[in-house]
Amino acid sequence: MTSDIILFGVGAMGQRIARLARERGYTIRAAIDMDPAKQGIPLGRLADWQHVESGPVVTGDIAEALKGRPATVLHATASFLRDVSPEIDACLQRGYDVISIAEEMTCPHVADPTIAAQLDATAKHHGARVMGTGVNPGFAMDMLVLALSVPCGRVDHIQVIRTNDLSDFGPTVLRTQGVGLTPKDFVDAVAQGSVVGHVGFAQSIALIARHLGWEIDSVTETREPIISSVAREAPHLKISPGQVAGCRHCAFAHIDGHEVLRLEHPQQICPGLEGQATSDQIRIKGDQVIEMQITPEIGGGAGTAAAAVNALAYLRHAPAGLVHLTDLPLTSPKLTTFPSQGDHS
Amino acid sequence: MTSDIILFGVGAMGQRIARLARERGYTIRAAIDMDPAKQGIPLGRLADWQHVESGPVVTGDIAEALKGRPATVLHATASFLRDVSPEIDACLQRGYDVISIAEEMTCPHVADPTIAAQLDATAKHHGARVMGTGVNPGFAMDMLVLALSVPCGRVDHIQVIRTNDLSDFGPTVLRTQGVGLTPKDFVDAVAQGSVVGHVGFAQSIALIARHLGWEIDSVTETREPIISSVAREAPHLKISPGQVAGCRHCAFAHIDGHEVLRLEHPQQICPGLEGQATSDQIRIKGDQVIEMQITPEIGGGAGTAAAAVNALAYLRHAPAGLVHLTDLPLTSPKLTTFPSQGDHS
Repeated sequence: MTSDIILFGVGAMGQRIARLARERGYTIRAAIDMDPAKQGIPLGRLADWQHVESGPVVTGDIAEALKGRPATVLHATASFLRDVSPEIDACLQRGYDVISIAEEMTCPHVADPTIAAQLDATAKHHGARVMGTGVNPGFAMDMLVLALSVPCGRVDHIQVIRTNDLSDFGPTVLRTQGVGLTPKDFVDAVAQGSVVGHVGFAQSIALIARHLGWEIDSVTETREPIISSVAREAPHLKISPGQVAGCRHCAFAHIDGHEVLRLEHPQQICPGLEGQATSDQIRIKGDQVIEMQITPEIGGGAGTAAAAVNALAYLRHAPAGLVHLTDLPLTSPKLTTFPSQGDHS
Repeated sequence: MTSDIILFGVGAMGQRIARLARERGYTIRAAIDMDPAKQGIPLGRLADWQHVESGPVVTGDIAEALKGRPATVLHATASFLRDVSPEIDACLQRGYDVISIAEEMTCPHVADPTIAAQLDATAKHHGARVMGTGVNPGFAMDMLVLALSVPCGRVDHIQVIRTNDLSDFGPTVLRTQGVGLTPKDFVDAVAQGSVVGHVGFAQSIALIARHLGWEIDSVTETREPIISSVAREAPHLKISPGQVAGCRHCAFAHIDGHEVLRLEHPQQICPGLEGQATSDQIRIKGDQVIEMQITPEIGGGAGTAAAAVNALAYLRHAPAGLVHLTDLPLTSPKLTTFPSQGDHS
């Protein structure tokens, strides 16, 4: 087993992945980012390592970064398949495996079956593997649901509620959730597509349906404003009573006209100020009822970085092609020892 | 995919498995039981189907039951490897896959590495697969822990508490937990081995350690009486204040002298009478803290039958030999359609 990996994307999540991978004994052989402002800088300085000048120098030259013996690329640049597929394709063409945290990569057929089929074919042709992972989609609203279904003889209905706190996020994320808008402006922004809510419901639904053998007829979604009754203040934004604190985005999947799956994801700043605890809740109704609660909710940032690094020990054993999380064993954090630890400082 | 299966063991759990397998569209081609009192009786009568005279007639003749095209055997006869391995071996010798709910089969190397290696070799030689599953061991204290570790970058400590209610169990089970004894007699019974507590801690610890790459140095166990402060009455037993309501069995695993895993399993009759809710609780401490609770606890009987039937769709894709649950994808209840549903009545 080699400990070499490549980092593709050195934003906030890429830096988190870099720190964790390094702690876990992996050697980051090259780091790619398309932002000229990051190129030429040692990864250690961007990711705030102790020896800030160490690690590979960030490059925008994919061909330069992906040379030598193929390794696994940890990919963290964007959410949507159409944006990330050329980057992933470039890695697969060179026989490099790819683990991406792009939300749509957890089940890419849902976003675009043609692109998904192309990635699968390219990977197979070059003997490489590609998968997506993360906390949501990838865990809280799909893999954890499937885990809880293992002792069920029959599943009739699934409800998942993930209540989280957006307070630590920057203005870009808060804008996509409508934080700070008036309720009326929120409705307009949803109609115009500038308030998008959560990215990943379609993937979570598809991962669950695929694994349970369900054929979903229709999916509906709602995006409603969470209107604050109190003043709330996050590092990047302050809102007054009556303003929007966030977006309650829900998805409902049906079979034969019956709702079988309900995913609710209220995302807002400072839910605690109205007595709302953050949590992950799952309720499965079938031959038994299983009601699960995790409080506070599983950390999205830390959890997604971990899910990506943890997958390194598992993807290499999968057959070439497009791999779904649901086809792998549980990607738990495996303690691994490498032939030569080398110098990771 | 064939829908044919064989049932080995027609006790309470075997009957549960038979009912669920039938509901799920599987055809039970033969049913084996070594108890002469069950032989010669149609499975439908034992398992209380609507058409009680239907289904295969229970036989004690393994060679007779295991003829024709190999299928998967659902095995539910006993808990310990030394008792079940001859039965399982007989199936593997004939090229039949085996899914067993024997507790020690979830990780048989822990109970007896020689027997485990023999089963693995026999299975490989005949191109068959063998695995163990169930709720505990097999899910509540191991697989579910591993599922929750997926978003963890590091796991430092795991605590699992499974609090259940023994009220529905018969005198044999209540005796193995010391229910109705005086506290002094409980201590003596533990020393003599007649109060055993839970069977499966060693397997749960091994499944977790194997999957996380942990090398456990030592495991200690404690069995303490749960002394009732109130009168409690279950269908098969009544106890007075001061008597033992059950056994709090715990296991503690260590690496380099540090506790890394703590499994607590208080089993008793009527815990609700002292305000104790039944539940499954897991706490993982690492780079994040994950605290999960399921209330009430996952049903042991229903869950174990489901885990066994659910595994049918997954084991057939595993390589020949001894298979561990942790090496499979999540064995969720997959809706399957069979080429010919036939008549399962």
